[in-house]
This record gives sequence, structure tokens and C-alpha cells, in this order.
Amino acid sequence: MIVRELEEARSGERLVKSEGWDSTRLLLAGDDMGFSFHITRLFAGSTNTFEYKHHFEAVYCISGEGTIEDHGTGKTHTIKPGVMYALNEHDRHTVRTNAGEDLVVACSFNPPVTGQEVHREDGSYAPPGEAA
Amino acid sequence: MIVRELEEARSGERLVKSEGWDSTRLLLAGDDMGFSFHITRLFAGSTNTFEYKHHFEAVYCISGEGTIEDHGTGKTHTIKPGVMYALNEHDRHTVRTNAGEDLVVACSFNPPVTGQEVHREDGSYAPPGEAA
Repeated sequence: MIVRELEEARSGERLVKSEGWDSTRLLLAGDDMGFSFHITRLFAGSTNTFEYKHHFEAVYCISGEGTIEDHGTGKTHTIKPGVMYALNEHDRHTVRTNAGEDLVVACSFNPPVTGQEVHREDGSYAPPGEAA
Repeated sequence: MIVRELEEARSGERLVKSEGWDSTRLLLAGDDMGFSFHITRLFAGSTNTFEYKHHFEAVYCISGEGTIEDHGTGKTHTIKPGVMYALNEHDRHTVRTNAGEDLVVACSFNPPVTGQEVHREDGSYAPPGEAA
């Protein structure tokens, strides 16, 4: 059994920071669960575009509010606590976080993130085994 | 892109109820994400023993407090918001929820749950393809 605590993990290598967000990887590929599990904060007032060409991702909103724009359909959905979105078609998407409060989400990735990826310019992570 | 909302999902077939807990399956095997994703409420004051012999499960505490006892080591860990536990060795475990407030957790399962499983007497789910 693995037991990890978010605030403790945020003080170490499990925390990855970017301009508009940070993400704490509570489970990574090396944990051999078949998925990785992250707690991600999208900063208040930020706009972030992602496209995980090589991963499936599910995102569940714990706190905060915002919107997600699906580039494929042009539709925009509200994100608030209790809403989950799943990128089952590697959907390119833009998350806009309302001002005043970070959007805190729980994320599962398949295949699991190794912890070595960086976001490429196209908003994706490299597939496993390929250099970032 | 799949977008689902917890309270809406709780009014349909995605909600599974047991004596000490209920679980809302926001993603199931049929969503083809490679994992399932559930929001589970362990009722205030309840004691529940599980052993997922055929699944890996990660559990992240969103709200509420309790403990998890690892039957393999005899150790007990505190569960509170921010704590994640992962059953990477199919660990038999008992979750005790404090009185006064349900324990609300986000769970990822690999392989994904189909939605047809029932908990067996030993606390497990059947493996995929085998009758419950």
C-alpha cells in the first residue's frame, strides 16, 4: 500500500510548475498502477490549452470554477465542483479559470505519466519512451 | 470529450449503493479510457473491508476523515483531505470513517470497472469477463 499526502508531496519532486498551473503527481508510472494520479491547480484567471495526443486523461473538479472549450466541437462546458471531463478522443481543449480562486482538479492519466515529460509547444506530452 | 456531473449521475444507473457506502461511476470500462473513475461516499461512522484481488485502486480524500488499516502490515494510516492511498499490492484493508461526516473520495480502478460487478463476500470484485 502506498500512502501519500498532497502538501508533503508539494514540497518535493512530485510538484511540477508551469506558468498557468502546477501539478502534484501522487502516482507516477513507476508506481506500476497502470495510470498516474495528479492533483492539479489551474491558477485563478488563467487560460491553458492542452492536447494529450498520446494519453487519455480524466479530470474531476474538487474546487474552483471555470470553463472548458472543446476545440473539436466548439462547445464550451462549465467546470465546477462535481463536474468531470474525460479526453477520450485526445481532444484539444482550453481551460479558462475564473478570477479569484484556483481550479483544483484530480486527474488520472493512461498511460501513466513518468514524471519526466514536459509540455510540448502543441500542448501534448510525449508518448512513453520518446524524449520530451 | 465526455462531460458528466456528479449529482446528475447520482440520479441514474451510475450510482451503486451498499450498506456502508455508495459509489458513482463517472467513467466505466465502456468509456474506453483504460481505467474507471468513481466518486465514493463512505458513510459517517461506517467500517468497510475491501480486497480488490483483480484490480489496482487509487483513492484520494476530498472531504471527511477516517483511517485505513492495512491488514498486511497491521499499520493504520489517517485519512483526511489531501491523503491518497493506492492499493498497489491488492492490499486487503479496512476503512473506518469518523462519526459526523461522510468520507468522500475520488477513485481510479485498473482494469476499469464495468458497472456490473458486485462485491463478493471476500471484499473483492470479480476480474473482467468473469461473472460477479
